[in-house]
Amino acid sequence: MTVIESGGDAIIIDTGIMFPANDMLGVDYIIPDFRYLLDRPDLKIHGILYTHGHEDHTGAVAHVVEALPSIPLYATPLTAALLEVKLRDARLINETQINVFKPGEDFDVGPFKIESFHVTHSIPDCVGFGINTPHGLVVHTGDYKFDNTPIDGKRTDYAKLAEFSRRGVLLLLGDSTNAERPGWTQSEQIVNVAFDNIFRQAAGRIIVATFASHIARVQQVADMARRYGRKLAIAGHSMTENVKTARRLGVLDIDDNILVDLNRISGVLPHQLVIMATGSQGEPSAVLGRLATGQHRSLDVTPGDTIVVSAHTIPGNEETVSRTINKLFQRGADVIYDPIAPVHVSGHACQEEMKLMMTLTNPKFFVPVHGELRHLRANSRLAVMMGIPQPNIAVVENGMVIEVDKHSIRVGERIPGGYVFVDGGGVGDIGRAVMRDREILARDGFIMVVANVEAETGRLIGDPEIISRGFVYLKDADRLMTSVKQTINDVLAGSRASRNGKRREMLQESLSRMLYNETKRRPMVFGVINEH
Amino acid sequence: MTVIESGGDAIIIDTGIMFPANDMLGVDYIIPDFRYLLDRPDLKIHGILYTHGHEDHTGAVAHVVEALPSIPLYATPLTAALLEVKLRDARLINETQINVFKPGEDFDVGPFKIESFHVTHSIPDCVGFGINTPHGLVVHTGDYKFDNTPIDGKRTDYAKLAEFSRRGVLLLLGDSTNAERPGWTQSEQIVNVAFDNIFRQAAGRIIVATFASHIARVQQVADMARRYGRKLAIAGHSMTENVKTARRLGVLDIDDNILVDLNRISGVLPHQLVIMATGSQGEPSAVLGRLATGQHRSLDVTPGDTIVVSAHTIPGNEETVSRTINKLFQRGADVIYDPIAPVHVSGHACQEEMKLMMTLTNPKFFVPVHGELRHLRANSRLAVMMGIPQPNIAVVENGMVIEVDKHSIRVGERIPGGYVFVDGGGVGDIGRAVMRDREILARDGFIMVVANVEAETGRLIGDPEIISRGFVYLKDADRLMTSVKQTINDVLAGSRASRNGKRREMLQESLSRMLYNETKRRPMVFGVINEH
Repeated sequence: MTVIESGGDAIIIDTGIMFPANDMLGVDYIIPDFRYLLDRPDLKIHGILYTHGHEDHTGAVAHVVEALPSIPLYATPLTAALLEVKLRDARLINETQINVFKPGEDFDVGPFKIESFHVTHSIPDCVGFGINTPHGLVVHTGDYKFDNTPIDGKRTDYAKLAEFSRRGVLLLLGDSTNAERPGWTQSEQIVNVAFDNIFRQAAGRIIVATFASHIARVQQVADMARRYGRKLAIAGHSMTENVKTARRLGVLDIDDNILVDLNRISGVLPHQLVIMATGSQGEPSAVLGRLATGQHRSLDVTPGDTIVVSAHTIPGNEETVSRTINKLFQRGADVIYDPIAPVHVSGHACQEEMKLMMTLTNPKFFVPVHGELRHLRANSRLAVMMGIPQPNIAVVENGMVIEVDKHSIRVGERIPGGYVFVDGGGVGDIGRAVMRDREILARDGFIMVVANVEAETGRLIGDPEIISRGFVYLKDADRLMTSVKQTINDVLAGSRASRNGKRREMLQESLSRMLYNETKRRPMVFGVINEH
Repeated sequence: MTVIESGGDAIIIDTGIMFPANDMLGVDYIIPDFRYLLDRPDLKIHGILYTHGHEDHTGAVAHVVEALPSIPLYATPLTAALLEVKLRDARLINETQINVFKPGEDFDVGPFKIESFHVTHSIPDCVGFGINTPHGLVVHTGDYKFDNTPIDGKRTDYAKLAEFSRRGVLLLLGDSTNAERPGWTQSEQIVNVAFDNIFRQAAGRIIVATFASHIARVQQVADMARRYGRKLAIAGHSMTENVKTARRLGVLDIDDNILVDLNRISGVLPHQLVIMATGSQGEPSAVLGRLATGQHRSLDVTPGDTIVVSAHTIPGNEETVSRTINKLFQRGADVIYDPIAPVHVSGHACQEEMKLMMTLTNPKFFVPVHGELRHLRANSRLAVMMGIPQPNIAVVENGMVIEVDKHSIRVGERIPGGYVFVDGGGVGDIGRAVMRDREILARDGFIMVVANVEAETGRLIGDPEIISRGFVYLKDADRLMTSVKQTINDVLAGSRASRNGKRREMLQESLSRMLYNETKRRPMVFGVINEH
């Protein structure tokens, strides 16, 4: 999410989500902290512009529209259709208006003249923006690569970028994802070569897993299906919906007679069938994950199947993807993935393409965007190599204001720009304290004892109740539970002073100490003492 | 851990540990399940042979020696020294005997004549074994690569491998780690070129992080320190100990005047200092992790520092490593890592080297070892490419018996061969149930209510006590806690039938339902009802 301000006017570019790291326990996803916008009633936000339809650029739209209704959205046809689904699901479709433009079209958003330009990426209808401001032209690349032979034949708009350069680019905001990778990202066409081999050789069914939004990959597989006389079935709700939307909008070209409903594949011979599926990140609830564990409603992996994992593994998902591949092997499938065969290429520019982008736009100032700090740094190193002076480059993380005018670029104040965790129905209510508790519980669980005692003497009435989860397997822990009861007895019997709080504290401390000595674990320990 | 049996005689090769995956909550490490050996009193185990000193080959030694005392160990000098430390720490040094051999030496272990051969890897003193059995010669590669210009000058013993081949190799057990990687692993020397650049250019301190056991890397950095007039300090307990051991054994050659104690580096100018440190995997408690978060006792990162992360990221650690790099950048350091510069190379063979190993040994039968199933499969594909017939290859996961004789190879019975989790003082007591509870607690925490009620009427006596962790931030959850109390009241007041179990079940169910409706989260819910 980027906000571009000039005087009292502003536009927003993209409203994405992040996926939680493995140690962000229980977090479903992360949205940007946009408090800054709520705290600026003086600011006139004229529109939200979308570069493309991926979750990390659109996923927070419902949260933003709910907080900032009536701000119009601007998107290309496919992106608009995907946004519409999200807003409908959140019952917010009537809170705003989606303005659709075609890649390459110009339009005004408040006082800003916007010039969109097509870029190649891994979903159709991707654009970057030229934004005309009183101080000069700002160019935002969006997510891009320079694929000269894209599947849909639509290349990045070199001419527009060169034209920007002729007019003078004040500031370039450039995608940094692959800034550590030398060379040039291979064309999507290389994947065709790999698929052609696979389709030629596979004797049984072929199952191809990729991102639900990877329309270009669906097109490639559909083309292969036609070439090799196979029917294509789609598995997975989101992919099914996306294919429907993309076909309706004409960005995906599949004949009706190629497609077969997933419920009717039993009528198709294995060597005449290819299935596209979700779950390329090893998500246990998506199609590939269910196939790996044998828990899919209608599909089974059988020996003879060829399964292609046709997607980049998002950092943090390496373990689950690897486990999924291993399990599919166990079920007798032949599994093909990068680097076994080039069945996927990145959607992002590598170093030489980033240099080309700087050459074409020739900006005065440069701000690397879209990536972790390490990627931003790597991109800024490229900019220096390209002759942009170090003082003309600003490397910042989320939440920093950058001030640019005709003559200079400065890093300004820090505004709220952290992560806002979404967990179930809660937005931003999970903070460090709750997360830390989850960490402790995840590591060693908890134990709780409830004891009834005589107020005066501290003598136990009846047996204390012991509840524990995630600590030890209670059924095998007889000896330990005896020690727990013994500790309770000892502590309470000795506690003549009947201040309940004190008794509880003593009990908890003694139990913690005893449990650590016995098990070398540190579960959370709670004691409840009812005095009678 | 591999067991080789012939008649009633057996030897064990390596006793390693695995590191837990991100979702193995609270697990410290994983040891092999060696119940099979305990259940076979008829089996005479003559020795445990070690290929090299890495944790994934030695880490479980104390567990094995404790369970199977008096079996002699066989190891090269450095490996033996590292094993000795582990056994001393576990107070088991007197339970067994460590026999030291030099790479290339032959020795008898029970009826087996063992021929050790040197291999290059990423720690000195690495070997593979030729094991002479009544059925023929079995060759175990250990972890290897063919580095023709290793730092210590000692190459893999091609001659021995060729001699094995001349005599005829029945079975090859081959390292599979990099079986998916084409080409040939680069020599450790390539790292010298990268380090030379870094040492030439760095204006301030240099900090190099790598594995504590990576003696070859320490040698390289020490050589650079000498070349560029820097002093070398070692940070991190395990690395300090390993350096001491390796120098004592003569496998690490560093002049005393190069070394400086970490406590005395304040007297050394920044551009005359290099520090080697642990923490290359982003472990929060190791040196690099502490530097990243500013929590090291005696060291601080300062602008002008050059920090080199000189290690492969173990799968599963990508996020923490990346976060560490980002934080070091934030602290003003320049951070250098692969792929920014080739500051690390793998210690394992790539595909062409695996093919070379098969060519040199020319085995009749082949079993890929050391890797996930995907890597074993990839290695077996290479073997087929090399002309080993598919029926002569057995691809199995841990816990499968393979039966080989002169004429055939068969996959036999499955024996206990799973993961045994070690958590604190507990070995194998954490099973699926406890892990599943930890998962639930990690995701949504728990809530517990303790209520005192009149036995007959179910009327609450006093306020119920509510304890919750990892669910919501209680201080901000007034409204929710009001609903909790209301639910308790409603359920108990309506519960005329005074069967406590029933009351508790109703209470827990109602609370779960209410909490899910309000928060879309599913914490564990516990109710304790004291009837009066």
